[in-house]
Amino acid sequence: MKAFMDENFLLQTQTAQELYHQHAAPMPIIDYHCHLSPQQIDEDKPFRSITEIWLGGDHYKWRAMRSNGVPERFCTGKDTSDWEKFEKWAETVPYTFRNPLYHWTHLELRTAFGIDTVLNPDTAHDVYEACNARIQNDPTFTPRGLMRKYNVETVCTTDDPVDSLEHHRRIRESGFEIKVLPTWRPDKAMAVENADTYAAYISRLSEVSGVGIATFADLVEALQRRHDFFAENGCRLSDHGIEEFYAEDYTQQDIDRIFTKVMAGQQLTQQEVLQFKSCMLVVFGEMDHATDWTQQFHYGAIRDNNTRMFRQLGPDTGFDSIGQFNTAKAMSRYLDRLAQNDRLTRTILYNLNPADNEMVATMLGNFQDGTCPGKIQWGSGWWFLDQKDGMTKQMNALSLLGLLSRFVGMLTDSRSFLSYPRHEYFRRTLCNLLGNDVENGEIPASEMTRLGQMVEDICYYNAKNYFKF
Amino acid sequence: MKAFMDENFLLQTQTAQELYHQHAAPMPIIDYHCHLSPQQIDEDKPFRSITEIWLGGDHYKWRAMRSNGVPERFCTGKDTSDWEKFEKWAETVPYTFRNPLYHWTHLELRTAFGIDTVLNPDTAHDVYEACNARIQNDPTFTPRGLMRKYNVETVCTTDDPVDSLEHHRRIRESGFEIKVLPTWRPDKAMAVENADTYAAYISRLSEVSGVGIATFADLVEALQRRHDFFAENGCRLSDHGIEEFYAEDYTQQDIDRIFTKVMAGQQLTQQEVLQFKSCMLVVFGEMDHATDWTQQFHYGAIRDNNTRMFRQLGPDTGFDSIGQFNTAKAMSRYLDRLAQNDRLTRTILYNLNPADNEMVATMLGNFQDGTCPGKIQWGSGWWFLDQKDGMTKQMNALSLLGLLSRFVGMLTDSRSFLSYPRHEYFRRTLCNLLGNDVENGEIPASEMTRLGQMVEDICYYNAKNYFKF
Amino acid sequence: MKAFMDENFLLQTQTAQELYHQHAAPMPIIDYHCHLSPQQIDEDKPFRSITEIWLGGDHYKWRAMRSNGVPERFCTGKDTSDWEKFEKWAETVPYTFRNPLYHWTHLELRTAFGIDTVLNPDTAHDVYEACNARIQNDPTFTPRGLMRKYNVETVCTTDDPVDSLEHHRRIRESGFEIKVLPTWRPDKAMAVENADTYAAYISRLSEVSGVGIATFADLVEALQRRHDFFAENGCRLSDHGIEEFYAEDYTQQDIDRIFTKVMAGQQLTQQEVLQFKSCMLVVFGEMDHATDWTQQFHYGAIRDNNTRMFRQLGPDTGFDSIGQFNTAKAMSRYLDRLAQNDRLTRTILYNLNPADNEMVATMLGNFQDGTCPGKIQWGSGWWFLDQKDGMTKQMNALSLLGLLSRFVGMLTDSRSFLSYPRHEYFRRTLCNLLGNDVENGEIPASEMTRLGQMVEDICYYNAKNYFKF
Repeated sequence: MKAFMDENFLLQTQTAQELYHQHAAPMPIIDYHCHLSPQQIDEDKPFRSITEIWLGGDHYKWRAMRSNGVPERFCTGKDTSDWEKFEKWAETVPYTFRNPLYHWTHLELRTAFGIDTVLNPDTAHDVYEACNARIQNDPTFTPRGLMRKYNVETVCTTDDPVDSLEHHRRIRESGFEIKVLPTWRPDKAMAVENADTYAAYISRLSEVSGVGIATFADLVEALQRRHDFFAENGCRLSDHGIEEFYAEDYTQQDIDRIFTKVMAGQQLTQQEVLQFKSCMLVVFGEMDHATDWTQQFHYGAIRDNNTRMFRQLGPDTGFDSIGQFNTAKAMSRYLDRLAQNDRLTRTILYNLNPADNEMVATMLGNFQDGTCPGKIQWGSGWWFLDQKDGMTKQMNALSLLGLLSRFVGMLTDSRSFLSYPRHEYFRRTLCNLLGNDVENGEIPASEMTRLGQMVEDICYYNAKNYFKF
Repeated sequence: MKAFMDENFLLQTQTAQELYHQHAAPMPIIDYHCHLSPQQIDEDKPFRSITEIWLGGDHYKWRAMRSNGVPERFCTGKDTSDWEKFEKWAETVPYTFRNPLYHWTHLELRTAFGIDTVLNPDTAHDVYEACNARIQNDPTFTPRGLMRKYNVETVCTTDDPVDSLEHHRRIRESGFEIKVLPTWRPDKAMAVENADTYAAYISRLSEVSGVGIATFADLVEALQRRHDFFAENGCRLSDHGIEEFYAEDYTQQDIDRIFTKVMAGQQLTQQEVLQFKSCMLVVFGEMDHATDWTQQFHYGAIRDNNTRMFRQLGPDTGFDSIGQFNTAKAMSRYLDRLAQNDRLTRTILYNLNPADNEMVATMLGNFQDGTCPGKIQWGSGWWFLDQKDGMTKQMNALSLLGLLSRFVGMLTDSRSFLSYPRHEYFRRTLCNLLGNDVENGEIPASEMTRLGQMVEDICYYNAKNYFKF
Repeated sequence: MKAFMDENFLLQTQTAQELYHQHAAPMPIIDYHCHLSPQQIDEDKPFRSITEIWLGGDHYKWRAMRSNGVPERFCTGKDTSDWEKFEKWAETVPYTFRNPLYHWTHLELRTAFGIDTVLNPDTAHDVYEACNARIQNDPTFTPRGLMRKYNVETVCTTDDPVDSLEHHRRIRESGFEIKVLPTWRPDKAMAVENADTYAAYISRLSEVSGVGIATFADLVEALQRRHDFFAENGCRLSDHGIEEFYAEDYTQQDIDRIFTKVMAGQQLTQQEVLQFKSCMLVVFGEMDHATDWTQQFHYGAIRDNNTRMFRQLGPDTGFDSIGQFNTAKAMSRYLDRLAQNDRLTRTILYNLNPADNEMVATMLGNFQDGTCPGKIQWGSGWWFLDQKDGMTKQMNALSLLGLLSRFVGMLTDSRSFLSYPRHEYFRRTLCNLLGNDVENGEIPASEMTRLGQMVEDICYYNAKNYFKF
């Protein structure tokens, strides 16, 4: 019996252990997509408590607690103390056996706090005290300190085109040795389904960009200015959160008319919304190609399913889930539109429903054009799939239907400064897969040097080269 | 090499064996959803032969026989003897290697008959004789005797609102120590796609409920009376067999008009059918919430695919299969409609297509509200998924995307009094998964007490508490 | 640690090894669906080089090379030498760790060339020389010689109704001891979505069949004559490449009108296209039933996704991928239409998206009618699924939801005379699955004789009996 989460956690073979300890573990982290707060990195303030870090905004934990029958006030409530919330979480922890939260929790305790106690109601108080003592007494226990501790080299946040990027600038100017780059996420610029919020957004965009926006051409001009501004601030990636791919037919006249209509405060038809989004995706894709950025697409979630809780808590509070969309043809048509005019930039596709895995894995190959290894990428297991099973399925399908060796690897997609152990989790899972293959005679042991290089590539070098950081 | 189906069948590790033998095996069975005949339990008559038990109505076996090239008369025919049918089944058995039927067959032989012979054409006659001898000579070999033998504590049958529940009453009054409770399954009350059969059903409902049904309000009143009657008779669950979820927009006027139209014998449009069903699901959900029942949804089958055989044999004879429905948004909208008004009762979702697994597993979390552990449940592998692989996938996805620990566990969904070994099958599979995790260092061995409790919970206590039996 | 690809490659247990070496390996190959060129078999010319064989038309390898950043001219270009292309492929090989290409490549080197060197840039030149020396010096290194070497008994090519089948005839008349039979693939006869190419095709069909085609009845008559001609030439199977199943309602008048319209050069509506295809599938199904052929359906691909490359290279050059179609109901309706009139012949369903696996696996059972074992078959892992994982998933789902024992097994679906090792790959995978079950106590060791027979059946006898070769 293996000890719980020892140094060879998840590494079932000698080969896996060698690959991990010699090749994966030493690699720096490039976290090319996350939702960290640039402000927090800029200000670099110490944390208040383990409760702030763990339960301040983590909808994974809130979901688990709600599923465990914990009342909402212990999740997001304002009338409960830090200890009360922590206690409820600690009670929930043993109910998360087999859930990634169980491993993440203990990996975080171990790597950030040096605590290897198993968390449960019996140990809750001691762990709480020990964590808080560390937080309060260790001056390196700040956002930047944690990023250094985990050997992070580059981080890409997620930012709206109207963002001033002042925090990114201040971080840069502070001489912080870890790169903190913005990512262009223009979802709101195509959210025409709600005419009111859209007009308000366009008004803000106009202000920030200095472009008066009366026509669609103005909109594109304003966005282009902000795109340029992001590029000047080190941005190398865009990102789009979409339900599904949009690739309707449209003419420029259609789009001009639709834009005028929505700006007049009129509700668009479903078809108009789809046409407008179809156009915007092309516009954004062309901008990204022109600046040699990588574009990312996160698709397939259905969000804010619980109206009541949405009204109470707003978005991103644990009420999103996996949708079902037959989007293969639209995805293909969208990528083809760009490829036809040689405007398809490096692209990463993230699906939320693992039932789409093989579809996405084979879509890549349609648009690999030999200009760069792994030009079209399949994103690492996203959100709900960011666990051993999800990662394994993604890597297996990618291996079988594409080239695992060219994979740009893991990202956290996280809001938490404690989420870097997920890279460790990913790396262990990767090395274990490869180790099994060698042990089973499916990869020649004589190729261990190349295999070690492949591990280093997936953990670090592929991303470094691909994103051109 | 492990011996075939020995006491550690499916239990690959020491930990798994300990969890199973000490924690899972001793638990009573709560079979909270099945299709047993209340009449058979009431009358408690001995069986005629092993053929009656095994081949009298088991569409799993019929399908296997037809796939094996066995003519229909040996499956459902009336001109073949019990022995002839049994012989054909015994010939088919070795062709079912790797199919759950192979294991179920031998588990049933072993646990109900004490026979551990491997069934094949060579042993067919001896097994046939031995089974029949036992059936004829053992006075406990009756429906009630079998339920006692398998340590059943509670059973929930599946019943139409117009059912008199007389057998349930008689069973109760007979002093039978095992609870046999009805389940409210009102599929026919929303089957408006066929105006003729619908009108006939409404007429019967009117009669049974004593409510003249002229308007939709009358319909609801009649159903409410039957719902009350079911509640008085111990019902704690409802169940709905639907192709997909229905959550169209509708007004009360729409529904009144649609009901009038269908009662006038007119065929409804597809949109009207969907609106009516959308409304009925809400009506039923509100009734269940008011009585604190649990509602169940079995969705995703396409039934009666073979018209010719349907005409010959009727429904539920082995001609149903797994459908493909993108129903995530409708499922969400339906649950949200109830949740918005705080009318969402405890709910169990069963999908038939395993491609929907992760969608369903994450849907739960949207509506967990902390009022009860695991309020929204993902039903155990249903129908075609009721085998080691289907169960494993369901438990893995539930583990990773929710809380396995709060799972209400297994049910047979069966028409057979010999199907209880499926609980054993489930329990062994569960313990094996957990055992592997401990052996692999993914769950701490120091938490074995909690893990043992978790096994007992999933096998018994969770269901007991959840359904409030 | 197992040696790389030794004689027990993929065979993890003693039982698996016994099953493979004693039962699977000795079986001849029936390759009942492939895309080999009858002309090449007829002419039986030696090959020019390993580059011709490996890179002349293999879109799997091209896709891998493009994904690896290899420019197009080294894939399909005409200005690069055989060595240059081979070198680029050899550089790509170590980047295909975990991809089936890695195993196929080494299996082909080993079984066809007797070379067990690991291919990589260091060994590329030696391997290239050794392969070419063998190709040039070994007079048996021809299409027919390779088919003999791999113990092929029967091969079914894929042919258009207008094909003269002259090569098949010449092969037959040459006394070649391996059966090379045509397969009826009438995709173009229902490709009415393009009125121009359709009319041209119909004109050619008219010419070849000797039937003037003015009406739909004429079309059917012409096709029937060709169908008869194929039957006379030993054809036993049809095959259809369809995106999804078509089962719209239509009347004979609709079809007559649609045919007249398309022949007049008018573009059809989407609905008319679907109706026409729905009708044609029934017409073809009835023809196949009348001649006691087996019909095959390959569905679910989206083809020619990359317009630019399609214009440059044409179809089948590596720009196809897995689609998403909810086709269960149409599939059911189509099969039911034939079954209702007792016109459903033996049928094999191949899905490209593994998310459809369980749907297809359960669809079979709806139409198994006991007239022949495994009458409705689920095709072996097709195209992208033709690897260990895809095969394993297909065989597992078939095992659990149907009868693996009645499976007609593997086919190559390949254009290459070196693809027969995929049968070996399949057989090893099959034996490994069964071996594990015996070792785990899930199949009785006492049934080894039956299990050995089952292996032989799946590898050879089932196909032989099913197709009535």
